[in-house]
Amino acid sequence: MPLSPLPPLLYADSVSNPDQLYFSRVSVPDPFIAFTAGAKRIALLSALELGRVRKARTLDDVLSLEDWRDRAATRFPGRPGPAEIIATVARAYRVKAFRVADDFPAGLFEQLRALGVKLTLADGPLFPERELKTAREAAAIAEGNRLSAVGFAAAEKILRATRIKGRTLLHEGRPLTSERLRFAIDSAILAEGGLAQGTIVAGGDQACDPHERGSGELRPHELIILDIFPRVSATGYYGDMTRTFLRGRASTEQRRLVDTVRAAQLAALGAIRAGVDGRDIHGRVTATFTAAGYKTEHTKNGSVGFFHGTGHGLGLAIHEMPRLSGAISMPLKKGAVVTVEPGLYYPGLGGCRIEDVVQVTARTPKMLSSYPYEWELR
Amino acid sequence: MPLSPLPPLLYADSVSNPDQLYFSRVSVPDPFIAFTAGAKRIALLSALELGRVRKARTLDDVLSLEDWRDRAATRFPGRPGPAEIIATVARAYRVKAFRVADDFPAGLFEQLRALGVKLTLADGPLFPERELKTAREAAAIAEGNRLSAVGFAAAEKILRATRIKGRTLLHEGRPLTSERLRFAIDSAILAEGGLAQGTIVAGGDQACDPHERGSGELRPHELIILDIFPRVSATGYYGDMTRTFLRGRASTEQRRLVDTVRAAQLAALGAIRAGVDGRDIHGRVTATFTAAGYKTEHTKNGSVGFFHGTGHGLGLAIHEMPRLSGAISMPLKKGAVVTVEPGLYYPGLGGCRIEDVVQVTARTPKMLSSYPYEWELR
Repeated sequence: MPLSPLPPLLYADSVSNPDQLYFSRVSVPDPFIAFTAGAKRIALLSALELGRVRKARTLDDVLSLEDWRDRAATRFPGRPGPAEIIATVARAYRVKAFRVADDFPAGLFEQLRALGVKLTLADGPLFPERELKTAREAAAIAEGNRLSAVGFAAAEKILRATRIKGRTLLHEGRPLTSERLRFAIDSAILAEGGLAQGTIVAGGDQACDPHERGSGELRPHELIILDIFPRVSATGYYGDMTRTFLRGRASTEQRRLVDTVRAAQLAALGAIRAGVDGRDIHGRVTATFTAAGYKTEHTKNGSVGFFHGTGHGLGLAIHEMPRLSGAISMPLKKGAVVTVEPGLYYPGLGGCRIEDVVQVTARTPKMLSSYPYEWELR
Repeated sequence: MPLSPLPPLLYADSVSNPDQLYFSRVSVPDPFIAFTAGAKRIALLSALELGRVRKARTLDDVLSLEDWRDRAATRFPGRPGPAEIIATVARAYRVKAFRVADDFPAGLFEQLRALGVKLTLADGPLFPERELKTAREAAAIAEGNRLSAVGFAAAEKILRATRIKGRTLLHEGRPLTSERLRFAIDSAILAEGGLAQGTIVAGGDQACDPHERGSGELRPHELIILDIFPRVSATGYYGDMTRTFLRGRASTEQRRLVDTVRAAQLAALGAIRAGVDGRDIHGRVTATFTAAGYKTEHTKNGSVGFFHGTGHGLGLAIHEMPRLSGAISMPLKKGAVVTVEPGLYYPGLGGCRIEDVVQVTARTPKMLSSYPYEWELR
């Protein structure tokens, strides 16, 4: 009979730490103690949060941090900190050992061990079940992608409305910039209940640095990458989609680039199913690029070609398990939700990335994102 | 002669981790290795980020993660992870020991120790100098507070434009809700270059849970707390201000409550200067409340009165050093930037909080926030 895993212990806020949000299902901006004892999910909150978190009814016991600090003070004189409070509450609940995530704070880890609380680092994710999305979670991610699509629609409408004047795209009489287009995207998403942070609107050679957000004037006849990954405010789940547009007339080379990226995406999508290795999916993409003659090279001045992973898990974190990457073997599990985002980047020609999100099934993956692929806006 | 502190080692993203942003001054959404060797500030980035981070020119050496993974592989067969890569690059730079923050990831901490890399937990903050803001940092925080004020202006304009109909505030023909007012605030801030997350628009009894964001209809003749803490997108610094409004006619009790909170804030502001203990500033606030007859009580159903700290440091994190709190003695240093935010909360009557931001000097603190205190909008 396998041993039950040790109960989890967390000390983090639930805005930036996805494990804490997964566990508590309530948004708390400061670090707090949470753990499991038997079947109970327990958290300690200060007076500032206590009433609100109790009303959320997402946890079994919501304890007063101040009360337990007072109890800890009888055992540990002075001002007890999180370590002493955890040791006290764990004893009261008769928990002697916990498992903690790799990103558990090292300072608290050392203090707890010194107090005799046994901690074991989770071998992998703290909650491996986070990788497998329920129907409700998949719907929350699809809502995130709906918000991404709202952003594309806002951007496409503006791009189509621009007037081409030499090397400038005029919108409402002014040159269109990455900043203005990003604002149109982010505010459309805000109006629909999402928060977009770090939206990429990068044209021309800027797009050849895949995480460059983009700045300054957008140019006609150049590829423009839009990567939009908003968080749904109500649930904390993310969407993550990319489209590449061009306002004006594409060159033959630009068309071949975009066609090849889309072909690579379709090759990957066609191969994704439960049990297939994410590395093999990535291999489909690189094979498509190689067959079409697109080379990947790493030089002193940077990389060109295809030099990022094909995809990543998506959920309460923007990057989570699993990975679809050449660097690591990772068989895809039924229920996992992943991005599929091949790209090609050549300074001088420009960059193209196309990204959608699917849930892995035993057969054809279920699309959780939707926006047209028409990209040349004449 | 005192020993120089050990060089810092970080492994975090710089969007959610303020130490990493302070060190690298470039926004990177995934965890990366950064450290100091001699006078050089060094970071390792993947091909996805390398070009962009080099162009930012905020670090002395920006190394290729892939190159150093290859080098690590000659010493550690298999696929080297962050621990093996850190051990390899530290040896090349002849650094044998590092200091790390309390929130350094415990998993990596244990792996590095096992590889013989000496790590010492920072006794307190990793970068104590983060507490003392340069003129440039103070200006960045003031810009954050300007964005908060943009939010108040947007909200006040809407509140003034509402029509009172019974228990409803009608705006453009529809009942005004927390959600609509929050959207007006957050989108006004977005348009000015900030990102507001978690904006509080809480009326009536909802405001008595200080971190309740607020939802549903806002009512006339009720206190409405607006707490707006946007991040400036260009720099990563935060603003943090609170105002309490009421649309309609305030009762005598509501007026006394708001007057007392403002009096407590002025008492605190008048006492803040370098060398004064943050606990004593907090004591000024509680003394003001006690003298005015406002009691603080903790019951099974929650707390009433004043049950949070008077203020906190503000910078690249929304809550950082120092604290102005009854729980801890912490003398204020010249250059520190702190919020001053007394509040009173009584279900039935409502909640009031007023928050501004100051920089500590040898004399009267320098205000880094500005918005009128007129609150009764008839």
